[in-house]
Amino acid sequence: MTTQNFPLNTWYVAATPEEVTDKPLARTICNLNLVFYRNDKNKAIALEDFCPHRGAPLSLGFVENGKLVCGYHGLKMGETGKTDSMPNQRVENFPCINAYAVEERHGFIWIWPGDQSLVDSDLIPDLVWSNNNDWAYGGGLYKIQCDYRLMIDNLMDLTHETYVHASSIGQKEIDEAPVDTKLEGQEVVTSRYMDGVYAPPFWQAALEANDLASDVLVDRWQICRFSLPSHVMIEVGVAHQGKGGYDAPDNVKANSIVVDFITPETDTSILYFWGMARKFKPEDQALTNKIQQGQGAIFSEDQDILEQQQRNLLIYPEKKVLKLDIDAGGVMARRLIDRAIKKEQAANK
Amino acid sequence: MTTQNFPLNTWYVAATPEEVTDKPLARTICNLNLVFYRNDKNKAIALEDFCPHRGAPLSLGFVENGKLVCGYHGLKMGETGKTDSMPNQRVENFPCINAYAVEERHGFIWIWPGDQSLVDSDLIPDLVWSNNNDWAYGGGLYKIQCDYRLMIDNLMDLTHETYVHASSIGQKEIDEAPVDTKLEGQEVVTSRYMDGVYAPPFWQAALEANDLASDVLVDRWQICRFSLPSHVMIEVGVAHQGKGGYDAPDNVKANSIVVDFITPETDTSILYFWGMARKFKPEDQALTNKIQQGQGAIFSEDQDILEQQQRNLLIYPEKKVLKLDIDAGGVMARRLIDRAIKKEQAANK
Amino acid sequence: MTTQNFPLNTWYVAATPEEVTDKPLARTICNLNLVFYRNDKNKAIALEDFCPHRGAPLSLGFVENGKLVCGYHGLKMGETGKTDSMPNQRVENFPCINAYAVEERHGFIWIWPGDQSLVDSDLIPDLVWSNNNDWAYGGGLYKIQCDYRLMIDNLMDLTHETYVHASSIGQKEIDEAPVDTKLEGQEVVTSRYMDGVYAPPFWQAALEANDLASDVLVDRWQICRFSLPSHVMIEVGVAHQGKGGYDAPDNVKANSIVVDFITPETDTSILYFWGMARKFKPEDQALTNKIQQGQGAIFSEDQDILEQQQRNLLIYPEKKVLKLDIDAGGVMARRLIDRAIKKEQAANK
Repeated sequence: MTTQNFPLNTWYVAATPEEVTDKPLARTICNLNLVFYRNDKNKAIALEDFCPHRGAPLSLGFVENGKLVCGYHGLKMGETGKTDSMPNQRVENFPCINAYAVEERHGFIWIWPGDQSLVDSDLIPDLVWSNNNDWAYGGGLYKIQCDYRLMIDNLMDLTHETYVHASSIGQKEIDEAPVDTKLEGQEVVTSRYMDGVYAPPFWQAALEANDLASDVLVDRWQICRFSLPSHVMIEVGVAHQGKGGYDAPDNVKANSIVVDFITPETDTSILYFWGMARKFKPEDQALTNKIQQGQGAIFSEDQDILEQQQRNLLIYPEKKVLKLDIDAGGVMARRLIDRAIKKEQAANK
Repeated sequence: MTTQNFPLNTWYVAATPEEVTDKPLARTICNLNLVFYRNDKNKAIALEDFCPHRGAPLSLGFVENGKLVCGYHGLKMGETGKTDSMPNQRVENFPCINAYAVEERHGFIWIWPGDQSLVDSDLIPDLVWSNNNDWAYGGGLYKIQCDYRLMIDNLMDLTHETYVHASSIGQKEIDEAPVDTKLEGQEVVTSRYMDGVYAPPFWQAALEANDLASDVLVDRWQICRFSLPSHVMIEVGVAHQGKGGYDAPDNVKANSIVVDFITPETDTSILYFWGMARKFKPEDQALTNKIQQGQGAIFSEDQDILEQQQRNLLIYPEKKVLKLDIDAGGVMARRLIDRAIKKEQAANK
Repeated sequence: MTTQNFPLNTWYVAATPEEVTDKPLARTICNLNLVFYRNDKNKAIALEDFCPHRGAPLSLGFVENGKLVCGYHGLKMGETGKTDSMPNQRVENFPCINAYAVEERHGFIWIWPGDQSLVDSDLIPDLVWSNNNDWAYGGGLYKIQCDYRLMIDNLMDLTHETYVHASSIGQKEIDEAPVDTKLEGQEVVTSRYMDGVYAPPFWQAALEANDLASDVLVDRWQICRFSLPSHVMIEVGVAHQGKGGYDAPDNVKANSIVVDFITPETDTSILYFWGMARKFKPEDQALTNKIQQGQGAIFSEDQDILEQQQRNLLIYPEKKVLKLDIDAGGVMARRLIDRAIKKEQAANK
């Protein structure tokens, strides 16, 4: 790897809390082969997945009293990457392996894959819905074989819903509504408003779940917010027509935030943590499950097209793709990413 | 790809008519990634499988009123490779993709993968059996992982029948009969005559299907005809002994043409369109099906040996293979191919 | 391949006798693609797996009257690599393929993959248990995707038993017992003695099979003997405590030799011929089968860790692994291997 394709001095979502247990978890993030586990204080730890003794992956081992033990010859690794002990051996001079800052916050396990001297847990983004009883959250994880930036493009240009998700959230009016893209501080915001349309199936169901009529005209909105390194939060919703749209009171609308944490696994694959946070009927777990299932089905429709797009771009490396107005969100997001990478590289010189 | 391994300014069989519908078909031909579909006049169209907007394969899309629509963001492609329209966009300056001349003729879809200014539909070969009620045709398509020239070698040297197809069309006398190879115009002709032999199982069945005794001595012939770029037509048959062999009257023989259109998919894989055209009992569809099934089974016996031969040649790139008299057909065919490629390259300078 | 990773002028186990029949067997050894079969005297033959006619693998062919026949066009190969005959052809000037010295001895088929002018069958090691009614032998073959030296390391450091084979032959005392490694002539010997311990499950069963009490303290030993190119014989056993341990009389102990012939297939894969020779109850075939099954299960536990270790070492080519006292056996074995390779290379200059 000679090219740096992603910012490293930043927080990525590495896992959901229930994925990291006392059984080691192998996971690749930003081309780093890592092992995750929990120590004796239940804190999530991330280390290079390489035993300094003979190079076996530590993820094949086990956790004993909160310590990661290599499954080959019993080397006991400390959570800072320094060997703790090994039967009958003096381990002081064993080479260390890399340890990575990990934080558990807002319902996710976060990792800082870059320079560990720069770690700043205050930089983990606030998530408005977490630890808030007015909100409910459900989500999942997909692994997709594509450059993480193709997924950002996908989410910052929702005209694809008309084609890829025709039977659920797509509708012809998305294509036809003008899109507005701007930079707000360090956030790229792409917004689209469709007034006086009929809600597509997913939103009809959401209205009904919210005890609202679904067969009437609605005002629909989509506000996509990209922030570094690769998070896309999309405010989406419908309100009965003429009641204020995005600003309508809660009792005439159904709205939620589509949550997308896109973590590069390698240069051409991602861990895609998707989910939906909603502000209505948060106590209704059956509704959470139903939405999660529906959203999971919708997002799986993107997988094939993204992977084939990636393959095609690799087949035709010399071809340029277009940057239309509808692509402006992705284009501006890439500009922020490029700037962040260049800044890191300049600092490393 | 730095080496040109196949002539490009020529017609290849790309598909059978029923493969090309209003559902896009992805197919690679001569290292070109293509999408095939039918327009509103039911004409087959072939385009580069690359959407100029964001690079998604157009073959993942759909056909609407005879227009190919990208399944990602709805770009509507014209059949000449120029974008027709896209929701809310001015498309005049969108880059074009390549379009390839396609003709439907003689029961096949033909493509000209090279210089489109040289396309000449008169160069599509005549097929004697097509649109002729005296003949019946049945065939199929196999994908084989080998250089297309290995398949030409295979078909121009039928001594392999004794070994690869021992239980159907092989017989010891093939090995023992002398073979004659010559260039007739632009056609390489390899012929072998075996007089006074017993017919192998396949031909016994053919004699019986033709209401002829099958347990008597026959004169058997095989006349392989190679023509550019990679077509091999093989006249094969048996006649009751001493009745004139190849020239015997129809009522004492069973004969047919083995049809082989070998289309390079990549440098080391082919689309192999095989079939058999026969001049007896053409109205007997059950017989056509039976022959098709039998031939399909026989030709599948070649697949493993061709793919393993290809793998072995890649393992031992420095080894030379022999060019015996029995190989003369393949050797002369390769000479015609090389000459055609050189001529194209000279013209491109 | 620019680097020589294994000695070539030496004997490797290529197969078990029942694997080599009159049906050709394709097998890769030391990066050589070979075909094995038996000639008309039932002698095992090994040839390059490449037909000089058109490059098809000879292993796709068949054996006729002890001669290997190519399955493509019937070339009949001689056992020295010189073509014997071909229908209607003069074969005197056909290029030869390589033939390799093969010996069947001590229950194995051995091959000398290097310089055939140096072949010396006296260099095949003696195996004490073969053709000896006091001993019984059972074994198997695993293919593992790792450098053969990783398997040597594995076998010369049995501390891994505590972790990888915890439920069968592992026990905590292995870790804790000091290990002694020395060079005895051309043999690397690593020994470990554990006195006054309880036998782990595998050895309890062995004691019981030998009609000995299994619930008493025992003295246990492991003596690993490496010899070039890649053979590891491990004397293992337990004796009732205080009866002399390794030197105790046969009626108070259960002991055997773990047999490991590790044949490089490629640079990163091996044919692993494992087995166990035991000196008690040699006539008990049911016991042989039971031990074979148990050992097969134990050795399959190594496969995953070895393959993942190999993958990890390829991912981190710049990382060095440690050479601890417990690794001394593997380290000294590699030193002998390196010296043998260098000697061959010097002789080739």
